[in-house]
Amino acid sequence: MTTAQFITLEGVEGVGKSTNLEFICSWLTGHNIDYIVTREPGGTPLAEELRNMVLSHRDEMVDAQAELLMVFAARAQHLNTFIKPHLAKGTWVISDRFTDASFAYQGAGRGISIQDILSLEQLVQKGFQPDLTIYLDCPPEIGLARACQRAELDRIEREDIAFFERVRAAYLERAAEYPDRFEIVDASVDLPQVQGQISHLLQRRYGSH
Amino acid sequence: MTTAQFITLEGVEGVGKSTNLEFICSWLTGHNIDYIVTREPGGTPLAEELRNMVLSHRDEMVDAQAELLMVFAARAQHLNTFIKPHLAKGTWVISDRFTDASFAYQGAGRGISIQDILSLEQLVQKGFQPDLTIYLDCPPEIGLARACQRAELDRIEREDIAFFERVRAAYLERAAEYPDRFEIVDASVDLPQVQGQISHLLQRRYGSH
Repeated sequence: MTTAQFITLEGVEGVGKSTNLEFICSWLTGHNIDYIVTREPGGTPLAEELRNMVLSHRDEMVDAQAELLMVFAARAQHLNTFIKPHLAKGTWVISDRFTDASFAYQGAGRGISIQDILSLEQLVQKGFQPDLTIYLDCPPEIGLARACQRAELDRIEREDIAFFERVRAAYLERAAEYPDRFEIVDASVDLPQVQGQISHLLQRRYGSH
Repeated sequence: MTTAQFITLEGVEGVGKSTNLEFICSWLTGHNIDYIVTREPGGTPLAEELRNMVLSHRDEMVDAQAELLMVFAARAQHLNTFIKPHLAKGTWVISDRFTDASFAYQGAGRGISIQDILSLEQLVQKGFQPDLTIYLDCPPEIGLARACQRAELDRIEREDIAFFERVRAAYLERAAEYPDRFEIVDASVDLPQVQGQISHLLQRRYGSH
């Protein structure tokens, strides 16, 4: 019997996170695993308020460090009042994004000091990490083309393609740094092939659950 | 000619911060000094939103670390987009509270790790400190008795007297750590005597401006 797992899903806009999150949930349901789905930034009412403040368009220029601290404030609330209590009860927690996204978006994307992000990761997580991070990898020009067909782009999605190149490079660096935790899925292929890869890795890790 | 000064005013509830802030402003005006008044948490629209989130009553239990990170997010926004630009233009900045209040309220008051607060102070301020901190010192039982005559107490003011004893002790510790920056004013005496002390210290520091 595997202890309750904390699984995070990462990837740039348009890479198919929502669809593949549903697929992961179906797989867990099919294996009689009790789970709950959440997202970052967000996951509690206070953290969702902070998420809205970070993502909303505003007249005031938002200081990059202030944005980073708001993301980590939301994360502390989410981790300490939602994620950890659920895991302690034996419920698996599946999160649409977690701290790797801070390194990718605020760090590589916005150019905030990686040392600052590492300090905050240490302060809030004290060594705590996801058990599994599924990174949906896709060249940004493919992902953004998909995202543009959807809804109005929010503030972060409006950034240019170079931004997303840096974000992708940062995700791949984090994956190289945490090879046991990360699973890189090629998300540039057709959906059935993407889900084949996800199904395969879940089976390998948890098939005997 | 003194360069533009960053002056902070600290003290527990009911100690007379508002009245004495006005007195400081009159003194500066009387000496033809260009200044602007602000407060923490707050000081910009985004930082004020964060202040409201921290101070409001809510059903959700607010994680102490999340609260600390929200306060420092507001501080980063305030420092980088308001305080530093004003000082650079030659305008003195007078703030009702700053980081010493985090050590007093979140640290000593709520029991958050002092090491965590020091990490955030370093991350956001990188050695930057006020030029002068006027600490209005008063035993909490006197200050709280005054505050209760005012308006409905907010979440933080409802804490018990032991909380404010710890807060006061922390302020006095910070003052001992930064003897050049801090001026301790005895605020338990009558208002004219309090203002006499403030006038005296401002004259000593800036009388020749």
